[in-house]
Amino acid sequence: MYTLSKPTTCFLDAITSPQELKRLSGRELQDLAAEVRQEIVANLSKTGGHLSSNLGIVEITLALHKVFESPKDTLLWDVGHQGYVHKMLTGRRSHFKTLRQYKGLSGFVTPVESDHDAFIAGHSSTSISLAVGMAIARDHLKKTNKVVAVIGDGGLTGGMALEAINHLGHIQRDVIIVLNDNEMSISENLGGIAQYMKRIKETFFYKDIKSKLDLIEDRLDQVQLTPAVWEMILSVKKQAKEKFDTPGIVFEKLGINYSGPIDGHDVAAVIAAFNAVKDKSTPQLVHIITRKGKGYEPAERDSIKYHGVSAFSLEPPLTEKFEPVQPVQPIKAKAKTYSDIFSEALIELAELEPNMVAITPATAEGSGLVRFGKIYPERFFDVAICEQHAVTMAAGMAKAGLKPVVSIYSTFLQRALDQVIHDVAILKMPVVFGIDRGGLVEDGETHQGVFDIAMLRAIPNFMLLAPRNATELRNMLYSALKKNEGPVAIRFPREKAVEAENLEPFALVDYTKWQTVQTINAHNADKPPVVLLAYGAMVATAQSAMPALEKVAGQVTLINASSAKPLDAALLRDLLADSHAKIITLEEGCLSGGFGAAVLEFASAEKMRHPQNKQADVFCMGIADHFVEHGARSILLNENALSAEKIVEFVKKVGA
Amino acid sequence: MYTLSKPTTCFLDAITSPQELKRLSGRELQDLAAEVRQEIVANLSKTGGHLSSNLGIVEITLALHKVFESPKDTLLWDVGHQGYVHKMLTGRRSHFKTLRQYKGLSGFVTPVESDHDAFIAGHSSTSISLAVGMAIARDHLKKTNKVVAVIGDGGLTGGMALEAINHLGHIQRDVIIVLNDNEMSISENLGGIAQYMKRIKETFFYKDIKSKLDLIEDRLDQVQLTPAVWEMILSVKKQAKEKFDTPGIVFEKLGINYSGPIDGHDVAAVIAAFNAVKDKSTPQLVHIITRKGKGYEPAERDSIKYHGVSAFSLEPPLTEKFEPVQPVQPIKAKAKTYSDIFSEALIELAELEPNMVAITPATAEGSGLVRFGKIYPERFFDVAICEQHAVTMAAGMAKAGLKPVVSIYSTFLQRALDQVIHDVAILKMPVVFGIDRGGLVEDGETHQGVFDIAMLRAIPNFMLLAPRNATELRNMLYSALKKNEGPVAIRFPREKAVEAENLEPFALVDYTKWQTVQTINAHNADKPPVVLLAYGAMVATAQSAMPALEKVAGQVTLINASSAKPLDAALLRDLLADSHAKIITLEEGCLSGGFGAAVLEFASAEKMRHPQNKQADVFCMGIADHFVEHGARSILLNENALSAEKIVEFVKKVGA
Repeated sequence: MYTLSKPTTCFLDAITSPQELKRLSGRELQDLAAEVRQEIVANLSKTGGHLSSNLGIVEITLALHKVFESPKDTLLWDVGHQGYVHKMLTGRRSHFKTLRQYKGLSGFVTPVESDHDAFIAGHSSTSISLAVGMAIARDHLKKTNKVVAVIGDGGLTGGMALEAINHLGHIQRDVIIVLNDNEMSISENLGGIAQYMKRIKETFFYKDIKSKLDLIEDRLDQVQLTPAVWEMILSVKKQAKEKFDTPGIVFEKLGINYSGPIDGHDVAAVIAAFNAVKDKSTPQLVHIITRKGKGYEPAERDSIKYHGVSAFSLEPPLTEKFEPVQPVQPIKAKAKTYSDIFSEALIELAELEPNMVAITPATAEGSGLVRFGKIYPERFFDVAICEQHAVTMAAGMAKAGLKPVVSIYSTFLQRALDQVIHDVAILKMPVVFGIDRGGLVEDGETHQGVFDIAMLRAIPNFMLLAPRNATELRNMLYSALKKNEGPVAIRFPREKAVEAENLEPFALVDYTKWQTVQTINAHNADKPPVVLLAYGAMVATAQSAMPALEKVAGQVTLINASSAKPLDAALLRDLLADSHAKIITLEEGCLSGGFGAAVLEFASAEKMRHPQNKQADVFCMGIADHFVEHGARSILLNENALSAEKIVEFVKKVGA
Repeated sequence: MYTLSKPTTCFLDAITSPQELKRLSGRELQDLAAEVRQEIVANLSKTGGHLSSNLGIVEITLALHKVFESPKDTLLWDVGHQGYVHKMLTGRRSHFKTLRQYKGLSGFVTPVESDHDAFIAGHSSTSISLAVGMAIARDHLKKTNKVVAVIGDGGLTGGMALEAINHLGHIQRDVIIVLNDNEMSISENLGGIAQYMKRIKETFFYKDIKSKLDLIEDRLDQVQLTPAVWEMILSVKKQAKEKFDTPGIVFEKLGINYSGPIDGHDVAAVIAAFNAVKDKSTPQLVHIITRKGKGYEPAERDSIKYHGVSAFSLEPPLTEKFEPVQPVQPIKAKAKTYSDIFSEALIELAELEPNMVAITPATAEGSGLVRFGKIYPERFFDVAICEQHAVTMAAGMAKAGLKPVVSIYSTFLQRALDQVIHDVAILKMPVVFGIDRGGLVEDGETHQGVFDIAMLRAIPNFMLLAPRNATELRNMLYSALKKNEGPVAIRFPREKAVEAENLEPFALVDYTKWQTVQTINAHNADKPPVVLLAYGAMVATAQSAMPALEKVAGQVTLINASSAKPLDAALLRDLLADSHAKIITLEEGCLSGGFGAAVLEFASAEKMRHPQNKQADVFCMGIADHFVEHGARSILLNENALSAEKIVEFVKKVGA
């Protein structure tokens, strides 16, 4: 009986490319939109993925493919995770069961999959710059295609998007910006621009003044006026219309033609808006209002919870038609992650450190800072997708006596490296960086947190720490705030925290002194001694390799290298002095310039000081020189030589 | 007789701190301004420095110190090289003869020198973020001081300044932004915002509509109107006034109160403007119009030429009073720099490569691209101080069929590292980066180009090249464009080009194969062989060390390691196989993660493949883990172990 009541997808079934979609009427497209929504919810309930944003952008996507000629016309998706509908309409519908799985369909648009995808985009605020570049190229090559950048209101807070608008307004190229305004980036929508957009929607002042001028005109009709007065009134009306008859005056003033706001769930209205700007040759911005999670009630109610979801049980109403309803449990209760430990420690520390403040660039949800923000709203700063501003603002705060903690993902810290160098490190500002998602994540090439160790390590005056368990994370944070001496980065993976139960009170610890975690001895006494220098989360992985190592190796010492900068020079000197030993560094980051490289550099400098001394050999485990694709973290770790099994293989390979 | 006619500085002489300045009247301040200008020109004619911008900001600086209480109130200078006047007024006048000299007065504001300087700022667009941070701290700590951010119209194009304005407009803290609008960043003023500011100055529309409404009112007075009509007219006027009676509507809409434009050379007007906003508690922007080079005619005529000057001969009129006039020769004819070679090669290549375009983020002058822009205006893109946008736009261009060359200083590339990773490298976009000022410069900590090798080397899919002479620079550029296969960075120092005469036509060369430059043999046959692997400009330095090495060392081979990524694996393998050899890497960049680290990593990986083989020792010369201060390039190179002399010492030290 269930199969019969499964919703039909007769329109969607007929679409193998955007061509078929073009034949549909407005009414039929509205039906298609409903089918697309059902399919997205059904698919994502099995695979997980970005639900809310894709439900919100259904009609915009349909209208784009109706009006423009992809791939001849280029559609650029700012933050490609809103591209699921686009993927469905461009021949990838049948692959959705592999969404975000290893070797499966990417969670982002990507040219690897389709000519309809021009770029991969995991970070925000890139689409307008890409569009400007492609439009300049088009003009230079005398082509005539359109270039359309789709950007969210969150993406528009990013400095580079504003740079691009500023440039586009100046050079006046033919670029269409579709502003998908759902009043919300990943967390709350923030900033003057967002508030301005909101006011546009709330009050159309221009309408007001116009209607009043109309009324004046009507009433004056009843009195005798000279022609000169009439002329003047008409001239004022005309000027008012020209200058103010637009809710998008800020964009207009910057040289971007504005149209909107448009109801983004009225597909006919969106199509009409696109048709109206399609043949213009100047920069256009179409302001479209959508609702995240549109059409799936639980997601509409709480679009943040449904921003990126794991596989989930379907709730009514969509599913009751075709599947037995399961208990409502969209996100499973989980063991505590490092993010949880970090954010809970911040809340505890807020009492001890009254001048501590927390800053996040639009990742309050992912970093677990929402609760901190609720308890300490005056000490919590979500600056929207503005990593650069977040870091430099923190430098200002530190200078003026606060203790700022910047919570930021490793991959997004790349956006603010200059600020870290220029505004924080040169003057040794005591800013604490909680670097979340340091290491591999399942979100693909754009989100891998693998460069932070190498890049931060090059910066003088920095301390780089990584905890091996929950207690260390807490104490690193506590100690950094307590000492308040200079910039400290504390890096942890997107992972369940090790030893997260029964946590002790905070303790002041010097993590630049590395500690031995474990030593095993000599089933194979002829083998050279092995020293594992594990950074952060790799300590736990190395621990799990110890039983197997016991069988194949000789003496093995596992050291918790809790600080990648500075290194524990005294300890390292001792270790290097044993010329028979094999030192192996382990890190969840790129090998080029990473923690391992630091140890190699140290060994080389040490050798220079004592050229006659023999030294232990140093070998490095880490992520080779490639971009790591998407897939489950466990798969990626093993593929990138960061599993217990791979450690054992490596130890064998170096002849130990 | 000359001494008598030397201009008096009676007001300036009386000022040892901002306190004395407060007692001066408007008229006296105007006289003080003239004295300050004379002194700046006279000083800079001897030391060099940033002339035009400091002449432009004299009255603003005087007014700031008149109205605000530095250092209790914080003055934040965006790009601190406009802080000379501020330095003069805060006790550092007598140090100007050491300006920008090693161990002398910094060319930027810096807290190392004075409590009146809150931050060091060499990169643009940071001041508003710093101000927001300091204002939040002030409020949290219940202080009452003012925070003033001084930013230029150039700085306002930077994305992070726009992020900060967006945030400030939302959080409504008490911050005063002083926009020093001289219609010109380093090169031409660009962008929609700049054009908007220009229109503000040109036409005050609001005045127009207001005067027309007044006129209507007057004329209607003569006719009989009902009270309701009158009321309506007044209501329209009021609304028009509220909403439009400001030329800064864009800022107002974003939540920043605007006042201006103010004549920035009328010190009384500037003081009045500051007094008017001083006691407000909401974000304020004061828009002040100044003229770069104001008061020194040659600099007013050509403020770009006088942006940053070397010591120069004074021209009339200022100097004729007190110094014999010397021939007009403000900048001496110089040998060709690498920038010259690069920009001239671009012009030549433009013929061969019709789809090549050049991009610069506001450094057209410094990079020598002005001439390219004049010859090929349609293929030249100065995007203002927008490094992020520049890089991602280039990715869009490459995708759509152009061959973009991004000319960017090493230090400013730090602003766009995420874009290099995310938009260029992941998809292997063939973007060519001409990395100018790679290495040490005399401009101080903020401008040292020492991190690029380490940071770019961590990024997969990248090729990192550095030329040892003019021919190599030309051929690297040519070959990268010809092959058009993926991102290539070509790095060169701010230095006269080696072998810049009689250049050959372009040739396609594979620079990933390193070449031996020179081998000297064995005055000291008992010494181990030394291999110098020199990257880029270090080849020439190493060459100059060869005669001295001949006396102290055995066999010395100098190899031009033209590519830091990829390394020449075959050659390196051979070199490492000679276990007696001492391999020494040389680079003008940070040791942490740099080219030397790459060789160490390679040697370690090689050792892993053949654990039984003995290897040559690898030692690294480069810049240690510290921020390099300002001073002449030759001094800094020697201080940082990058001179011929230091190479000889190093070779001795490693026992070779």
